[in-house]
Amino acid sequence: MTAPDRVATATLTVETPGEGFCEITAEVGRFLADAGARDGVLLLYLRHTSASLVIQENADPEVQTDLRTALRRLAPADAGWVHDTEGPDDMPAHVKAMLNGISLHVPVTDGKPALGTWQGIYVAEHRARPHRRDVILQFIGRAGT
Amino acid sequence: MTAPDRVATATLTVETPGEGFCEITAEVGRFLADAGARDGVLLLYLRHTSASLVIQENADPEVQTDLRTALRRLAPADAGWVHDTEGPDDMPAHVKAMLNGISLHVPVTDGKPALGTWQGIYVAEHRARPHRRDVILQFIGRAGT
Amino acid sequence: MTAPDRVATATLTVETPGEGFCEITAEVGRFLADAGARDGVLLLYLRHTSASLVIQENADPEVQTDLRTALRRLAPADAGWVHDTEGPDDMPAHVKAMLNGISLHVPVTDGKPALGTWQGIYVAEHRARPHRRDVILQFIGRAGT
Repeated sequence: MTAPDRVATATLTVETPGEGFCEITAEVGRFLADAGARDGVLLLYLRHTSASLVIQENADPEVQTDLRTALRRLAPADAGWVHDTEGPDDMPAHVKAMLNGISLHVPVTDGKPALGTWQGIYVAEHRARPHRRDVILQFIGRAGT
Repeated sequence: MTAPDRVATATLTVETPGEGFCEITAEVGRFLADAGARDGVLLLYLRHTSASLVIQENADPEVQTDLRTALRRLAPADAGWVHDTEGPDDMPAHVKAMLNGISLHVPVTDGKPALGTWQGIYVAEHRARPHRRDVILQFIGRAGT
Repeated sequence: MTAPDRVATATLTVETPGEGFCEITAEVGRFLADAGARDGVLLLYLRHTSASLVIQENADPEVQTDLRTALRRLAPADAGWVHDTEGPDDMPAHVKAMLNGISLHVPVTDGKPALGTWQGIYVAEHRARPHRRDVILQFIGRAGT
């Protein structure tokens, strides 16, 4: 048990190729190294309303295919949405972002995110076309020596 | 990179008018000002099981209409729930609260929540009638000078 | 308003009996006591992709039955998933974990989690068979005297 002595903040910009999952695990690891993080918590925040943050399996890419299918079934494009001025993929994207969420945290131990064996960190893009997405990364805890 | 020197906690009570979204972005800003927050993280926690916390679009009110529609489709009132002693809107409200979640965070930079351009912070009421909802606001980080 | 002087981290291992909700509220309380926590935030993180963390009603067990039913309807086993090498319950479990999420926080006041009257903290197991699940518990804040 130690006293926290560091708050570090940075913005990661992710260029998404359209609907799907963009892994940012490596970028998160680099942020922690740059911040001199040792023990504490990593906080991630996405500054958008039609994309989300997800921690999910990084082994079989078919899992991501099925996650996308599941989200399309839960929020279909042709479901009679009243908000349709930004295209048929916009309102489903808001619903998916609400369900998945846009903030999460990961513990940091010995300078690394304490992810489980099969966990990767992703920006889930819910719009059809490519977008530029900002993720704010923060570390609060004890710095390394 | 600075050392955190402040933990501040307050409870915000929100009177909801029944099912729908109640924006609390302004109240959150006032809490940060009162707490003397400068850089760190704002944590929000809802002490209930049939409402939730959501960060979503604050521009077109039709987005909120569609989000409510989407949640009603995902957790309909007449779906044969076994828990029905508190009325037909109660069990759907628990499901919606589970899916949306009741805790989230927002980074704080220069004393302000680092929300995206179109992001507002909402208490989503999932019960049909008005309720009084407590949100615990916390700031952890560096205080202003 | 006080300065944070403690970061404490521990791993809680939960043996789940298969699909359903395992309450960990008591274990979380013991962690806070052991950590000497007084005021701050408790962070919980699940190191898995087919289970989730949920804060929900702890009064009527029928609520948990209905929450399980709701999740089965949202992510059915026989929905033509392409990822099926780990059994028919695996891909639905990933979807449920994505929707519910695997990280959350609870404020800590006077050494206790500031849960609402009806709130309990649960590991939601989404696989059919028993699993061993690791939850990382962290306290950041002010230690007791």
